[in-house]
Amino acid sequence: MSKSTIGNIFKVTTWGESHGQAIGAVVEGVPAGITLNMETIQAFLDKRRPGQCQFATARQESDKVNIMSGVMDGITTGTPVSLVIMNEDHHSKDYSDLAEVYRPGHADFTYTKKYGIRDHRGGGRSSGRETAARVAAGAVAKAFLKTLGIRFTTFVKSIGSVSYHDCPDPDFIWQNDLYMADRAAYEEAKLLLTGIREEGDSLGGIIECRIEGVPAGIGEPVFDKLDARLAQAVFSIGAVKGFEVGEGFGAAMLKGSENNDPFITNGGITEKASNHAGGILGGISDGSPIVFRAAVKPTPSISKPQSTVTSSGEDTVLRIKGRHDPVIVPRAVPVVEAMAAITLADLYLEGLGANISNIEKIKGR
Amino acid sequence: MSKSTIGNIFKVTTWGESHGQAIGAVVEGVPAGITLNMETIQAFLDKRRPGQCQFATARQESDKVNIMSGVMDGITTGTPVSLVIMNEDHHSKDYSDLAEVYRPGHADFTYTKKYGIRDHRGGGRSSGRETAARVAAGAVAKAFLKTLGIRFTTFVKSIGSVSYHDCPDPDFIWQNDLYMADRAAYEEAKLLLTGIREEGDSLGGIIECRIEGVPAGIGEPVFDKLDARLAQAVFSIGAVKGFEVGEGFGAAMLKGSENNDPFITNGGITEKASNHAGGILGGISDGSPIVFRAAVKPTPSISKPQSTVTSSGEDTVLRIKGRHDPVIVPRAVPVVEAMAAITLADLYLEGLGANISNIEKIKGR
Amino acid sequence: MSKSTIGNIFKVTTWGESHGQAIGAVVEGVPAGITLNMETIQAFLDKRRPGQCQFATARQESDKVNIMSGVMDGITTGTPVSLVIMNEDHHSKDYSDLAEVYRPGHADFTYTKKYGIRDHRGGGRSSGRETAARVAAGAVAKAFLKTLGIRFTTFVKSIGSVSYHDCPDPDFIWQNDLYMADRAAYEEAKLLLTGIREEGDSLGGIIECRIEGVPAGIGEPVFDKLDARLAQAVFSIGAVKGFEVGEGFGAAMLKGSENNDPFITNGGITEKASNHAGGILGGISDGSPIVFRAAVKPTPSISKPQSTVTSSGEDTVLRIKGRHDPVIVPRAVPVVEAMAAITLADLYLEGLGANISNIEKIKGR
Amino acid sequence: MSKSTIGNIFKVTTWGESHGQAIGAVVEGVPAGITLNMETIQAFLDKRRPGQCQFATARQESDKVNIMSGVMDGITTGTPVSLVIMNEDHHSKDYSDLAEVYRPGHADFTYTKKYGIRDHRGGGRSSGRETAARVAAGAVAKAFLKTLGIRFTTFVKSIGSVSYHDCPDPDFIWQNDLYMADRAAYEEAKLLLTGIREEGDSLGGIIECRIEGVPAGIGEPVFDKLDARLAQAVFSIGAVKGFEVGEGFGAAMLKGSENNDPFITNGGITEKASNHAGGILGGISDGSPIVFRAAVKPTPSISKPQSTVTSSGEDTVLRIKGRHDPVIVPRAVPVVEAMAAITLADLYLEGLGANISNIEKIKGR
Repeated sequence: MSKSTIGNIFKVTTWGESHGQAIGAVVEGVPAGITLNMETIQAFLDKRRPGQCQFATARQESDKVNIMSGVMDGITTGTPVSLVIMNEDHHSKDYSDLAEVYRPGHADFTYTKKYGIRDHRGGGRSSGRETAARVAAGAVAKAFLKTLGIRFTTFVKSIGSVSYHDCPDPDFIWQNDLYMADRAAYEEAKLLLTGIREEGDSLGGIIECRIEGVPAGIGEPVFDKLDARLAQAVFSIGAVKGFEVGEGFGAAMLKGSENNDPFITNGGITEKASNHAGGILGGISDGSPIVFRAAVKPTPSISKPQSTVTSSGEDTVLRIKGRHDPVIVPRAVPVVEAMAAITLADLYLEGLGANISNIEKIKGR
Repeated sequence: MSKSTIGNIFKVTTWGESHGQAIGAVVEGVPAGITLNMETIQAFLDKRRPGQCQFATARQESDKVNIMSGVMDGITTGTPVSLVIMNEDHHSKDYSDLAEVYRPGHADFTYTKKYGIRDHRGGGRSSGRETAARVAAGAVAKAFLKTLGIRFTTFVKSIGSVSYHDCPDPDFIWQNDLYMADRAAYEEAKLLLTGIREEGDSLGGIIECRIEGVPAGIGEPVFDKLDARLAQAVFSIGAVKGFEVGEGFGAAMLKGSENNDPFITNGGITEKASNHAGGILGGISDGSPIVFRAAVKPTPSISKPQSTVTSSGEDTVLRIKGRHDPVIVPRAVPVVEAMAAITLADLYLEGLGANISNIEKIKGR
Repeated sequence: MSKSTIGNIFKVTTWGESHGQAIGAVVEGVPAGITLNMETIQAFLDKRRPGQCQFATARQESDKVNIMSGVMDGITTGTPVSLVIMNEDHHSKDYSDLAEVYRPGHADFTYTKKYGIRDHRGGGRSSGRETAARVAAGAVAKAFLKTLGIRFTTFVKSIGSVSYHDCPDPDFIWQNDLYMADRAAYEEAKLLLTGIREEGDSLGGIIECRIEGVPAGIGEPVFDKLDARLAQAVFSIGAVKGFEVGEGFGAAMLKGSENNDPFITNGGITEKASNHAGGILGGISDGSPIVFRAAVKPTPSISKPQSTVTSSGEDTVLRIKGRHDPVIVPRAVPVVEAMAAITLADLYLEGLGANISNIEKIKGR
Repeated sequence: MSKSTIGNIFKVTTWGESHGQAIGAVVEGVPAGITLNMETIQAFLDKRRPGQCQFATARQESDKVNIMSGVMDGITTGTPVSLVIMNEDHHSKDYSDLAEVYRPGHADFTYTKKYGIRDHRGGGRSSGRETAARVAAGAVAKAFLKTLGIRFTTFVKSIGSVSYHDCPDPDFIWQNDLYMADRAAYEEAKLLLTGIREEGDSLGGIIECRIEGVPAGIGEPVFDKLDARLAQAVFSIGAVKGFEVGEGFGAAMLKGSENNDPFITNGGITEKASNHAGGILGGISDGSPIVFRAAVKPTPSISKPQSTVTSSGEDTVLRIKGRHDPVIVPRAVPVVEAMAAITLADLYLEGLGANISNIEKIKGR
């Protein structure tokens, strides 16, 4: 529950540097008896793999995940699930020119201030590569949540000024390499990114995640509210600079009468007539879909020359060589979904004993 | 680090319901040797007290804090600091008509789903009253951080569509009962709120917090990044629906070349020439001021009639009686500052052993 | 889960010094819907109260517990249960002569080394008085465990060289003021203690705890094994110097064929034919009674003159004035039981999601 | 701090089953700047390796550790240190006959009750093999503690009824394959074990650990006392049934005047004249050597026929085939030392901010 571990019951610890031997995750607290195989994890992991997207890095990694423990004959046993992904493309010579300079927008400076030394090879621990371990762990969380009927739809809502127009089309999302929600926005964004790449610059964007099938009652007041924990989990992704639930920042401009969701009965079930709240009231899921968004900053690695300082304290101009990604937002989509799944799995399990009538149902074990 | 406790070393546990006997906080991990007296805590607590603001609730509470432990002769001893605030105005008869109905925008429905029962008296645990305990605990965090030279400026950036115009005026903030940053915006907001109150409606707004004097190196990658932990802490405040750092959601619209902060040398010190990042790079403080904002939703308790459902499952129309606050944003200002201080104190202490040269400085103890 | 908090789901935080205004405990994670009233807690608390035992301290405390939150109409609501016990007899003048000297066997020296300052009044935080808060919290744990059919028998197995002879007599335990298990041993111990008191000296002893009705399956490998967590919980009581489960240290002298418990079937149920293991295999409860023992050191406060050092570093001879307890073992009995109950409640709740078939039983909530 | 993770700042997570692909540990919170190489870890790991002892299992494992992350050029970087040990000898066919029967003294029955399924191959997660990961992690803790001048002496105090006679001889400990403290006891124990092996039976014993160079002030009252945390850490080792500090269970038989350690001045330094307390007062290290002992039960796997039950509920007689270890106590010696080192490293780091004067020493970072 600190540093490289997240969660209280369903706990994920990631380890590994961009150019070390491997990266990995240990997932504790996975209930026994869940079907889990390498293919499921691999399929989700492939969605963030370099090379999936025309605008993404040329680093060649097959990102093959290996389940080292916690699963027997395709079924979880209740013991820690250890996932390892070997680093194949970890030649560190390309990075030697970055050893002595702080890249703007990166963690080079702050790691040095904190730890005294830093692994400069490809960003070391602060590299986006660490998120592959999160995605692998997230696939385990999703396998568990699937047995409970919980489903995720995550997509790129906007890149720069290009936003999707109307309802997201779930089928289209994984069919386009920007993971955008509709074709028109996708075509616009491609054009925009082509120009940005030519400039040697980059763009950010907004990711939206919708979670359906979450029963009412998940979230632990007062500090581990569902939205608070989602905020931490999503904000722990390197490039995220903003997070909002339901109407989010827009709620600050609404009246109470506009923002409140009336309750109604629907076939004997109490529901909300609208979902401005984004599925969370008082930090607890209310049975409506959970809806949140994350703002992702533009890729800090750009080709344009930038003013900076060397680690020995001299002003210099940095020209980062090689091809660079004009956008990382699409690759963050499975990462955001993974962090949401990990959070939800943890809070689901933590809440099992919230009231004595639940406990009595399983007393006879 | 779950439910009603936040933090890993500097840990705060709050307890208490709106209409119970008292509310309180236990603060663990306070370093010994810090000057701490009731007056300091009381002064901060008074900033969120009902009755401070012309637009805030009429509930009469003196909110007198009592330090029950952890302090001897005005100095902390290293043991838990227990803070208790008695509830004076806890007549629960006024709330009996709310026992059987779910108020829109409140946690009545979700608490019932989670726990099977709920304390309906004034919102019980989900009441804003719980935040008084946070503010008291935040005052302890601030007393510690003050010895390190860390200073906070927190204010209302906007209410509804009324936003401050230019640089915030720190002196003005605590001089106006909306805690807004400049006089012009304050006058506008007052006018707006007077109209909203007449309508029986309410408004939300945005709070900004700036923290100066934070040394570079605070924050624990990868999950306990400073921004991730601030996000959780601030989002755990009931009415918060959005959180952003530095350029925040605006960063999603910028180019990398616009959003990156160049490094420069200034008298031998490496600094950032701008602060789009809001003082955090890779989840670690970079020495620039920490800047973040929180979106607060409009008060859900409004006089206007609202459609809802009774706890026995019948559609009904709710008319909440009595005077209601057209805005709670100002009262959330000290709460936001408290949560930021608690988070910073915790991460500061957690990071003390990040590298061996720091440890060696205190080895000889 | 550090410092003054124990537990992961069912979490207890204690606060308070011997001579502060009050002491207390906050109990988080109590399931909603449990019957809990002041009388139940008070009855358990009264068992450790000063004045119960002819050999115990003359400090006059009524030790009245007050439930400040988390309970409505005698039923827990799922929110933190805050328990406060006011200190009545906290005149600190009697202790001024101890401010400048380190008492042998006490924490005076180590608190000073750790915190720089210490509350010398009656031991401050390290006083046995802190355990009253544990007992109050333990009563909450016991109320929860009672609904699951879990029962405790805790008693003094030995004082000095006087041990009980055969099977403990549960009815006799709370009928004698030494909480010993049979009358003969009680009479012997009384005689022994009368002599020790005349010498101005003290004695220690051994406490045994047996827990029946614990279902198989409680305990979290590999570090939060049931026995490991009981060990921490019981060893956190000031005077405890040893802890053992089942055969304990005796197992080191047995052969495998003597120490192993055969499994047998009993009416279709798999059971152990003996219980050398003390009800725990591989860190998980096995359905047999949990049996453990704790060794309690002799009271360090004795009337006999003792060599020591002043806080300014001068050798001196300490003569502690006033009446002193020749034995504290009996008063530790409810504390040991409380710590066991808190541990069991926590691990019970943490294990609810250990396998998917349990989870599916409550899925439909 | 639950399940397979131990520690709060210096945190160790182990994973892996006896017959999975590999076992491993992730060590978080290792301060940056510590010299750490594979050889150091391997040397410590080799002390628990099968095949070191004439009385230990014939399983052939080279137990080669691989540092996957957190170290660059032989120096720790402050990021998680991932350690992986491949399982070479994991042919699971030998264990198929154990799939359907509960071995007495093992965790087969309790894992089945808890998780519904269990990995029967060699004990799965509950196998002693898991402790190899602890030893590897313990080597990291020891490398850190060594920079602080903290040294360990751990040895077998007794096997069955054979105990060492006088002062332990540190040089002899690692020279004999039973890790006993003196030659005479070693020769006696060898004779005893040869006989026990012929009987098809096994023996337990007691391990003692002495830690020198620990400064006064380590340990976090009230629940994370140094002795309480050592108790949990050591008791989490599978075969441990008892734990004691200093005089331990013997203290229950002493008078206060015998058990108290007088303070004396020694060249201006305050010290204890004796060490009945085992170096811990009030849960905080007092500057004297830490001394504790653990009771280890006899190996449950014996050749003698044993009554038990099959997983389908039928009484049967179990005859475990193959060669079996008559004693596992020596192999537990590095495991006990590892758990002590992990605990001490964690509490050392957690206590860095106990008082403001320590913090001020490193403020200027």
